[in-house]
Amino acid sequence: MTEKSEQAEKTEKVALTPTTHTTPPAKFSHGVRKGNILQVAGQVGFLPAEEGKPPTPAGPTLREQTLQTLANVKAILEEGGASWDDVMMIRVYLTDVDHFAEMNEIYNTYFEEQALTAPPAARTTVYVGLPAGLLIEIDALAVLG
Amino acid sequence: MTEKSEQAEKTEKVALTPTTHTTPPAKFSHGVRKGNILQVAGQVGFLPAEEGKPPTPAGPTLREQTLQTLANVKAILEEGGASWDDVMMIRVYLTDVDHFAEMNEIYNTYFEEQALTAPPAARTTVYVGLPAGLLIEIDALAVLG
Amino acid sequence: MTEKSEQAEKTEKVALTPTTHTTPPAKFSHGVRKGNILQVAGQVGFLPAEEGKPPTPAGPTLREQTLQTLANVKAILEEGGASWDDVMMIRVYLTDVDHFAEMNEIYNTYFEEQALTAPPAARTTVYVGLPAGLLIEIDALAVLG
Repeated sequence: MTEKSEQAEKTEKVALTPTTHTTPPAKFSHGVRKGNILQVAGQVGFLPAEEGKPPTPAGPTLREQTLQTLANVKAILEEGGASWDDVMMIRVYLTDVDHFAEMNEIYNTYFEEQALTAPPAARTTVYVGLPAGLLIEIDALAVLG
Repeated sequence: MTEKSEQAEKTEKVALTPTTHTTPPAKFSHGVRKGNILQVAGQVGFLPAEEGKPPTPAGPTLREQTLQTLANVKAILEEGGASWDDVMMIRVYLTDVDHFAEMNEIYNTYFEEQALTAPPAARTTVYVGLPAGLLIEIDALAVLG
Repeated sequence: MTEKSEQAEKTEKVALTPTTHTTPPAKFSHGVRKGNILQVAGQVGFLPAEEGKPPTPAGPTLREQTLQTLANVKAILEEGGASWDDVMMIRVYLTDVDHFAEMNEIYNTYFEEQALTAPPAARTTVYVGLPAGLLIEIDALAVLG
Protein backbone atom coordinates (compact mmCIF):
# COMPACT_ATOMS: atom_id res chain seq x y z
CA MET A 1 0.00 0.00 0.00
CA THR A 2 2.62 2.46 1.08
CA GLU A 3 4.85 1.22 -1.70
CA LYS A 4 2.05 1.69 -4.20
CA SER A 5 1.38 5.23 -2.97
CA GLU A 6 5.04 6.05 -3.28
CA GLN A 7 5.09 4.80 -6.85
CA ALA A 8 2.05 6.93 -7.59
CA GLU A 9 4.01 10.00 -6.57
CA LYS A 10 6.75 9.37 -9.11
CA THR A 11 6.48 11.48 -12.20
CA GLU A 12 9.36 10.01 -14.16
CA LYS A 13 8.47 7.64 -16.97
CA VAL A 14 9.39 4.04 -16.22
CA ALA A 15 9.56 1.17 -18.72
CA LEU A 16 7.76 -1.99 -17.63
CA THR A 17 9.49 -5.18 -18.75
CA PRO A 18 8.19 -8.27 -16.95
CA THR A 19 10.49 -11.30 -16.76
CA THR A 20 8.08 -13.11 -19.08
CA HIS A 21 8.89 -10.63 -21.83
CA THR A 22 11.99 -10.06 -23.94
CA THR A 23 13.83 -6.82 -23.81
CA PRO A 24 11.79 -5.03 -26.50
CA PRO A 25 13.31 -5.77 -29.90
CA ALA A 26 12.47 -2.28 -31.10
CA LYS A 27 12.37 1.24 -29.66
CA PHE A 28 9.15 0.74 -27.79
CA SER A 29 8.30 -0.40 -24.28
CA HIS A 30 5.97 -3.28 -23.40
CA GLY A 31 4.45 -0.85 -20.95
CA VAL A 32 5.23 2.49 -19.39
CA ARG A 33 4.16 4.18 -16.21
CA LYS A 34 4.37 7.85 -15.38
CA GLY A 35 2.72 9.14 -12.23
CA ASN A 36 -0.60 7.34 -11.94
CA ILE A 37 -0.96 6.57 -15.65
CA LEU A 38 0.07 3.16 -16.96
CA GLN A 39 -0.09 2.22 -20.61
CA VAL A 40 0.32 -1.34 -21.83
CA ALA A 41 1.51 -1.78 -25.42
CA GLY A 42 -0.33 -4.06 -27.81
CA GLN A 43 0.15 -7.63 -26.61
CA VAL A 44 -0.35 -10.78 -28.61
CA GLY A 45 -0.48 -14.44 -27.65
CA PHE A 46 3.23 -15.15 -27.45
CA LEU A 47 4.38 -17.55 -24.76
CA PRO A 48 6.82 -16.27 -22.12
CA ALA A 49 10.10 -15.43 -23.83
CA GLU A 50 12.82 -18.06 -23.88
CA GLU A 51 16.45 -17.16 -24.53
CA GLY A 52 17.39 -17.93 -28.11
CA LYS A 53 13.88 -18.91 -29.22
CA PRO A 54 11.81 -16.75 -31.56
CA PRO A 55 8.45 -15.47 -30.25
CA THR A 56 6.01 -18.39 -30.28
CA PRO A 57 2.22 -18.10 -30.09
CA ALA A 58 0.57 -20.12 -27.29
CA GLY A 59 -1.29 -22.04 -29.99
CA PRO A 60 -3.31 -21.67 -33.15
CA THR A 61 -6.71 -21.26 -31.47
CA LEU A 62 -8.46 -18.07 -30.43
CA ARG A 63 -8.84 -19.44 -26.90
CA GLU A 64 -5.14 -20.15 -26.45
CA GLN A 65 -4.12 -16.81 -27.90
CA THR A 66 -6.71 -14.80 -25.98
CA LEU A 67 -5.75 -16.28 -22.60
CA GLN A 68 -2.03 -15.84 -23.31
CA THR A 69 -2.58 -12.26 -24.49
CA LEU A 70 -4.48 -11.45 -21.30
CA ALA A 71 -1.69 -13.04 -19.25
CA ASN A 72 0.84 -10.88 -21.08
CA VAL A 73 -1.14 -7.69 -20.40
CA LYS A 74 -1.52 -8.69 -16.74
CA ALA A 75 2.23 -9.27 -16.34
CA ILE A 76 2.90 -5.71 -17.50
CA LEU A 77 0.21 -4.25 -15.26
CA GLU A 78 1.69 -6.05 -12.26
CA GLU A 79 5.21 -5.00 -13.19
CA GLY A 80 3.92 -1.43 -12.86
CA GLY A 81 2.17 -2.03 -9.54
CA ALA A 82 -1.29 -2.16 -11.07
CA SER A 83 -3.98 -4.83 -11.42
CA TRP A 84 -6.94 -5.36 -13.71
CA ASP A 85 -8.97 -3.36 -11.19
CA ASP A 86 -7.07 -0.24 -12.27
CA VAL A 87 -7.67 -0.70 -15.96
CA MET A 88 -9.87 1.94 -17.59
CA MET A 89 -9.78 0.81 -21.20
CA ILE A 90 -9.08 -2.42 -23.00
CA ARG A 91 -8.72 -2.35 -26.77
CA VAL A 92 -9.33 -5.69 -28.43
CA TYR A 93 -8.24 -6.19 -32.01
CA LEU A 94 -9.60 -9.26 -33.73
CA THR A 95 -9.01 -10.34 -37.30
CA ASP A 96 -12.43 -11.88 -37.87
CA VAL A 97 -15.93 -10.69 -36.90
CA ASP A 98 -16.89 -14.33 -36.48
CA HIS A 99 -14.49 -14.57 -33.52
CA PHE A 100 -16.43 -12.03 -31.46
CA ALA A 101 -18.80 -14.38 -29.64
CA GLU A 102 -16.05 -16.79 -28.64
CA MET A 103 -13.67 -14.01 -27.57
CA ASN A 104 -16.46 -12.48 -25.51
CA GLU A 105 -17.15 -15.76 -23.76
CA ILE A 106 -13.47 -16.27 -22.90
CA TYR A 107 -13.21 -12.63 -21.82
CA ASN A 108 -16.27 -12.80 -19.59
CA THR A 109 -15.07 -15.90 -17.82
CA TYR A 110 -11.62 -14.40 -17.41
CA PHE A 111 -12.96 -11.20 -15.84
CA GLU A 112 -15.69 -12.80 -13.73
CA GLU A 113 -13.64 -12.66 -10.56
CA GLN A 114 -12.14 -9.25 -11.29
CA ALA A 115 -15.58 -7.74 -11.73
CA LEU A 116 -16.35 -8.58 -8.10
CA THR A 117 -13.80 -6.10 -6.79
CA ALA A 118 -14.06 -3.17 -9.24
CA PRO A 119 -16.10 -2.18 -12.29
CA PRO A 120 -14.67 -3.84 -15.38
CA ALA A 121 -12.82 -1.65 -17.86
CA ALA A 122 -14.46 0.02 -20.82
CA ARG A 123 -13.70 -1.77 -24.07
CA THR A 124 -13.60 -1.26 -27.81
CA THR A 125 -13.40 -4.22 -30.17
CA VAL A 126 -12.59 -3.73 -33.84
CA TYR A 127 -11.56 -6.01 -36.67
CA VAL A 128 -8.22 -5.32 -38.30
CA GLY A 129 -5.33 -7.02 -40.00
CA LEU A 130 -2.66 -8.63 -37.82
CA PRO A 131 0.59 -10.44 -38.69
CA ALA A 132 0.06 -13.96 -40.03
CA GLY A 133 -0.90 -16.50 -37.38
CA LEU A 134 -2.06 -13.93 -34.82
CA LEU A 135 -5.80 -13.78 -34.12
CA ILE A 136 -5.94 -11.22 -31.34
CA GLU A 137 -4.08 -8.20 -30.00
CA ILE A 138 -4.95 -6.31 -26.80
CA ASP A 139 -3.68 -3.10 -25.22
CA ALA A 140 -4.75 -1.37 -22.03
CA LEU A 141 -4.75 1.95 -20.23
CA ALA A 142 -4.75 1.97 -16.43
CA VAL A 143 -5.07 4.72 -13.86
CA LEU A 144 -3.63 3.88 -10.46
CA GLY A 145 -5.13 5.46 -7.42
CA MET B 1 -19.75 22.86 -9.75
CA THR B 2 -19.09 21.81 -6.17
CA GLU B 3 -20.52 18.43 -6.99
CA LYS B 4 -18.27 18.15 -10.02
CA SER B 5 -15.21 19.11 -7.98
CA GLU B 6 -16.08 16.53 -5.37
CA GLN B 7 -16.36 13.87 -8.04
CA ALA B 8 -12.98 14.93 -9.39
CA GLU B 9 -11.42 14.15 -6.02
CA LYS B 10 -12.63 10.57 -6.02
CA THR B 11 -9.98 8.07 -6.95
CA GLU B 12 -12.13 4.96 -6.95
CA LYS B 13 -13.15 3.58 -10.33
CA VAL B 14 -16.82 4.04 -11.08
CA ALA B 15 -18.82 2.34 -13.82
CA LEU B 16 -20.97 4.68 -15.92
CA THR B 17 -24.25 3.15 -17.01
CA PRO B 18 -26.71 5.74 -18.35
CA THR B 19 -30.40 4.85 -18.24
CA THR B 20 -30.36 4.74 -22.04
CA HIS B 21 -27.99 1.79 -21.90
CA THR B 22 -28.46 -1.83 -20.86
CA THR B 23 -26.54 -3.26 -17.98
CA PRO B 24 -23.47 -4.34 -19.99
CA PRO B 25 -24.05 -7.85 -21.36
CA ALA B 26 -20.39 -8.71 -20.83
CA LYS B 27 -17.63 -7.94 -18.34
CA PHE B 28 -17.01 -4.45 -19.59
CA SER B 29 -18.36 -1.05 -18.64
CA HIS B 30 -19.99 1.42 -21.06
CA GLY B 31 -17.74 3.96 -19.42
CA VAL B 32 -15.56 4.29 -16.36
CA ARG B 33 -14.31 7.23 -14.37
CA LYS B 34 -11.44 7.30 -11.94
CA GLY B 35 -10.27 10.60 -10.54
CA ASN B 36 -10.36 13.08 -13.41
CA ILE B 37 -10.03 10.49 -16.18
CA LEU B 38 -13.15 9.27 -17.96
CA GLN B 39 -13.09 6.61 -20.65
CA VAL B 40 -16.08 5.85 -22.85
CA ALA B 41 -16.20 2.36 -24.38
CA GLY B 42 -16.79 1.91 -28.09
CA GLN B 43 -20.35 2.99 -28.84
CA VAL B 44 -22.39 2.12 -31.89
CA GLY B 45 -25.70 3.39 -33.23
CA PHE B 46 -28.05 1.39 -31.04
CA LEU B 47 -31.25 3.09 -29.93
CA PRO B 48 -31.84 3.52 -26.18
CA ALA B 49 -32.24 0.07 -24.64
CA GLU B 50 -35.74 -1.31 -24.20
CA GLU B 51 -36.48 -4.13 -21.78
CA GLY B 52 -36.77 -7.40 -23.64
CA LYS B 53 -35.78 -6.02 -27.02
CA PRO B 54 -32.46 -6.85 -28.66
CA PRO B 55 -30.10 -3.94 -29.44
CA THR B 56 -31.47 -2.14 -32.48
CA PRO B 57 -29.54 0.30 -34.69
CA ALA B 58 -31.15 3.73 -35.13
CA GLY B 59 -31.36 2.98 -38.84
CA PRO B 60 -29.41 1.69 -41.80
CA THR B 61 -27.87 5.02 -42.83
CA LEU B 62 -24.55 6.52 -41.78
CA ARG B 63 -26.34 9.68 -40.65
CA GLU B 64 -28.74 7.86 -38.34
CA GLN B 65 -26.01 5.71 -36.87
CA THR B 66 -23.52 8.54 -36.43
CA LEU B 67 -25.98 10.77 -34.60
CA GLN B 68 -27.15 7.91 -32.39
CA THR B 69 -23.57 6.87 -31.65
CA LEU B 70 -22.70 10.43 -30.64
CA ALA B 71 -25.80 10.53 -28.42
CA ASN B 72 -24.69 7.30 -26.78
CA VAL B 73 -21.20 8.64 -26.10
CA LYS B 74 -22.70 11.85 -24.72
CA ALA B 75 -24.99 9.95 -22.34
CA ILE B 76 -21.98 8.21 -20.82
CA LEU B 77 -19.98 11.43 -20.53
CA GLU B 78 -22.87 13.09 -18.73
CA GLU B 79 -23.36 10.09 -16.46
CA GLY B 80 -19.77 10.70 -15.35
CA GLY B 81 -20.21 14.43 -14.84
CA ALA B 82 -18.42 15.36 -18.05
CA SER B 83 -19.41 17.04 -21.30
CA TRP B 84 -18.01 17.12 -24.81
CA ASP B 85 -15.92 20.10 -23.66
CA ASP B 86 -13.86 17.70 -21.52
CA VAL B 87 -13.16 15.24 -24.30
CA MET B 88 -9.52 14.98 -25.36
CA MET B 89 -9.73 12.23 -27.95
CA ILE B 90 -12.45 10.79 -30.14
CA ARG B 91 -11.72 7.62 -32.06
CA VAL B 92 -13.95 7.09 -35.07
CA TYR B 93 -14.08 3.68 -36.69
CA LEU B 94 -15.73 3.55 -40.09
CA THR B 95 -16.14 0.53 -42.33
CA ASP B 96 -15.77 2.35 -45.62
CA VAL B 97 -13.35 5.09 -46.73
CA ASP B 98 -16.15 6.47 -48.91
CA HIS B 99 -18.09 7.35 -45.75
CA PHE B 100 -15.48 9.83 -44.55
CA ALA B 101 -16.82 12.99 -46.19
CA GLU B 102 -20.38 12.39 -45.02
CA MET B 103 -19.30 11.44 -41.48
CA ASN B 104 -17.17 14.57 -41.34
CA GLU B 105 -20.06 16.76 -42.38
CA ILE B 106 -22.37 15.26 -39.76
CA TYR B 107 -19.59 15.48 -37.17
CA ASN B 108 -18.84 19.11 -37.93
CA THR B 109 -22.43 20.16 -37.66
CA TYR B 110 -22.83 18.19 -34.44
CA PHE B 111 -19.82 19.85 -32.81
CA GLU B 112 -20.39 23.36 -34.15
CA GLU B 113 -21.91 24.59 -30.90
CA GLN B 114 -19.49 22.68 -28.67
CA ALA B 115 -16.53 24.23 -30.42
CA LEU B 116 -17.70 27.65 -29.23
CA THR B 117 -17.02 26.82 -25.59
CA ALA B 118 -13.84 24.70 -25.74
CA PRO B 119 -11.39 23.42 -28.34
CA PRO B 120 -12.78 20.34 -30.03
CA ALA B 121 -11.22 16.99 -29.20
CA ALA B 122 -8.37 15.46 -31.15
CA ARG B 123 -9.53 12.68 -33.44
CA THR B 124 -8.31 9.63 -35.29
CA THR B 125 -10.44 8.02 -38.00
CA VAL B 126 -9.56 4.61 -39.36
CA TYR B 127 -11.36 2.04 -41.47
CA VAL B 128 -11.94 -1.36 -39.91
CA GLY B 129 -14.35 -4.24 -39.87
CA LEU B 130 -17.45 -3.96 -37.66
CA PRO B 131 -20.30 -6.40 -36.96
CA ALA B 132 -22.79 -6.69 -39.81
CA GLY B 133 -25.13 -3.72 -40.13
CA LEU B 134 -22.96 -1.32 -38.15
CA LEU B 135 -21.28 1.48 -40.09
CA ILE B 136 -19.60 3.43 -37.30
CA GLU B 137 -18.17 2.97 -33.82
CA ILE B 138 -16.84 5.77 -31.59
CA ASP B 139 -15.02 5.84 -28.27
CA ALA B 140 -13.74 8.78 -26.26
CA LEU B 141 -11.27 9.79 -23.57
CA ALA B 142 -12.10 12.75 -21.34
CA VAL B 143 -10.16 14.62 -18.71
CA LEU B 144 -12.28 16.50 -16.21
CA GLY B 145 -10.83 19.57 -14.58
CA MET C 1 11.26 24.86 -16.96
CA THR C 2 9.22 27.28 -14.91
CA GLU C 3 7.10 27.92 -17.97
CA LYS C 4 6.54 24.18 -18.39
CA SER C 5 5.54 23.79 -14.75
CA GLU C 6 3.09 26.63 -15.08
CA GLN C 7 1.53 25.00 -18.11
CA ALA C 8 1.23 21.76 -16.17
CA GLU C 9 -0.91 23.55 -13.58
CA LYS C 10 -3.43 24.70 -16.16
CA THR C 11 -6.56 22.63 -16.21
CA GLU C 12 -8.24 24.32 -19.15
CA LYS C 13 -8.22 22.45 -22.44
CA VAL C 14 -5.96 24.06 -25.02
CA ALA C 15 -5.90 23.34 -28.76
CA LEU C 16 -2.46 22.73 -30.21
CA THR C 17 -2.02 24.06 -33.73
CA PRO C 18 1.62 24.19 -34.83
CA THR C 19 2.53 26.62 -37.58
CA THR C 20 3.25 23.63 -39.82
CA HIS C 21 -0.40 22.67 -39.67
CA THR C 22 -3.52 24.22 -41.13
CA THR C 23 -6.29 25.47 -38.93
CA PRO C 24 -8.18 22.18 -38.66
CA PRO C 25 -10.63 21.88 -41.55
CA ALA C 26 -13.16 20.15 -39.30
CA LYS C 27 -14.31 20.35 -35.70
CA PHE C 28 -11.32 18.55 -34.29
CA SER C 29 -7.96 19.70 -32.95
CA HIS C 30 -4.57 18.49 -34.17
CA GLY C 31 -3.77 18.09 -30.52
CA VAL C 32 -5.16 19.13 -27.17
CA ARG C 33 -3.63 19.56 -23.77
CA LYS C 34 -5.41 19.70 -20.44
CA GLY C 35 -3.43 19.67 -17.24
CA ASN C 36 -0.62 17.18 -17.75
CA ILE C 37 -2.39 15.13 -20.42
CA LEU C 38 -1.63 15.79 -24.08
CA GLN C 39 -3.35 13.96 -26.92
CA VAL C 40 -2.15 14.17 -30.50
CA ALA C 41 -4.76 13.47 -33.20
CA GLY C 42 -4.06 10.97 -35.96
CA GLN C 43 -1.34 12.42 -38.15
CA VAL C 44 -0.48 11.41 -41.68
CA GLY C 45 2.44 12.20 -43.97
CA PHE C 46 1.29 15.60 -45.21
CA LEU C 47 3.97 18.21 -45.79
CA PRO C 48 3.78 21.45 -43.79
CA ALA C 49 0.67 23.32 -44.86
CA GLU C 50 0.97 25.96 -47.55
CA GLU C 51 -1.65 28.66 -48.04
CA GLY C 52 -3.94 27.78 -50.92
CA LYS C 53 -2.44 24.35 -51.55
CA PRO C 54 -4.29 21.14 -50.76
CA PRO C 55 -2.71 18.74 -48.25
CA THR C 56 0.16 16.98 -50.01
CA PRO C 57 1.86 13.77 -48.83
CA ALA C 58 5.64 13.98 -48.44
CA GLY C 59 5.91 11.29 -51.09
CA PRO C 60 4.57 7.95 -52.19
CA THR C 61 6.97 5.81 -50.13
CA LEU C 62 6.50 4.42 -46.65
CA ARG C 63 9.79 6.00 -45.58
CA GLU C 64 8.82 9.50 -46.70
CA GLN C 65 5.38 9.24 -45.14
CA THR C 66 6.59 7.72 -41.88
CA LEU C 67 9.23 10.39 -41.30
CA GLN C 68 6.81 13.19 -42.19
CA THR C 69 4.11 11.70 -39.95
CA LEU C 70 6.54 11.53 -37.03
CA ALA C 71 7.56 15.13 -37.71
CA ASN C 72 3.91 16.14 -37.63
CA VAL C 73 3.31 14.39 -34.31
CA LYS C 74 6.47 15.99 -32.89
CA ALA C 75 5.36 19.48 -33.93
CA ILE C 76 2.13 19.05 -31.96
CA LEU C 77 3.93 17.67 -28.92
CA GLU C 78 6.27 20.64 -28.93
CA GLU C 79 3.42 23.08 -29.41
CA GLY C 80 2.07 21.69 -26.14
CA GLY C 81 5.36 21.91 -24.27
CA ALA C 82 6.05 18.18 -24.53
CA SER C 83 8.67 16.04 -26.22
CA TRP C 84 8.88 12.41 -27.31
CA ASP C 85 10.24 11.67 -23.83
CA ASP C 86 6.76 12.39 -22.43
CA VAL C 87 4.92 10.10 -24.81
CA MET C 88 3.26 7.08 -23.19
CA MET C 89 1.58 5.52 -26.21
CA ILE C 90 2.05 5.64 -29.94
CA ARG C 91 -0.58 4.07 -32.16
CA VAL C 92 0.64 3.14 -35.60
CA TYR C 93 -1.87 2.37 -38.32
CA LEU C 94 -0.48 0.73 -41.43
CA THR C 95 -2.39 -0.41 -44.48
CA ASP C 96 -0.27 -3.44 -45.24
CA VAL C 97 1.24 -6.12 -42.99
CA ASP C 98 4.17 -6.29 -45.38
CA HIS C 99 5.13 -2.75 -44.36
CA PHE C 100 5.80 -3.69 -40.75
CA ALA C 101 9.50 -4.55 -41.01
CA GLU C 102 10.36 -1.39 -42.92
CA MET C 103 8.27 0.84 -40.65
CA ASN C 104 9.96 -0.72 -37.64
CA GLU C 105 13.40 -0.06 -39.04
CA ILE C 106 12.59 3.59 -39.75
CA TYR C 107 10.93 3.90 -36.34
CA ASN C 108 13.88 2.39 -34.49
CA THR C 109 16.37 4.68 -36.16
CA TYR C 110 14.13 7.68 -35.52
CA PHE C 111 13.83 6.91 -31.80
CA GLU C 112 17.41 5.78 -31.22
CA GLU C 113 18.44 9.10 -29.72
CA GLN C 114 15.20 9.62 -27.79
CA ALA C 115 15.57 6.25 -26.10
CA LEU C 116 18.80 7.48 -24.49
CA THR C 117 16.95 10.02 -22.35
CA ALA C 118 13.72 8.21 -21.42
CA PRO C 119 12.06 4.84 -21.98
CA PRO C 120 10.42 4.75 -25.39
CA ALA C 121 6.62 4.85 -25.53
CA ALA C 122 4.43 1.77 -25.58
CA ARG C 123 3.08 1.04 -29.03
CA THR C 124 0.30 -0.78 -30.83
CA THR C 125 0.49 -1.39 -34.56
CA VAL C 126 -2.55 -2.58 -36.49
CA TYR C 127 -3.47 -2.82 -40.15
CA VAL C 128 -6.47 -0.84 -41.30
CA GLY C 129 -7.85 1.02 -44.25
CA LEU C 130 -6.70 4.60 -44.83
CA PRO C 131 -7.64 7.18 -47.48
CA ALA C 132 -6.12 6.49 -50.90
CA GLY C 133 -2.42 7.32 -51.13
CA LEU C 134 -1.79 7.25 -47.39
CA LEU C 135 0.28 4.35 -46.04
CA ILE C 136 0.56 5.29 -42.36
CA GLU C 137 -1.24 7.19 -39.64
CA ILE C 138 0.07 7.78 -36.11
CA ASP C 139 -1.44 9.25 -32.95
CA ALA C 140 0.07 9.70 -29.51
CA LEU C 141 -0.80 10.18 -25.86
CA ALA C 142 1.64 12.05 -23.64
CA VAL C 143 1.78 12.72 -19.92
CA LEU C 144 3.82 15.74 -18.92
CA GLY C 145 5.52 15.73 -15.58
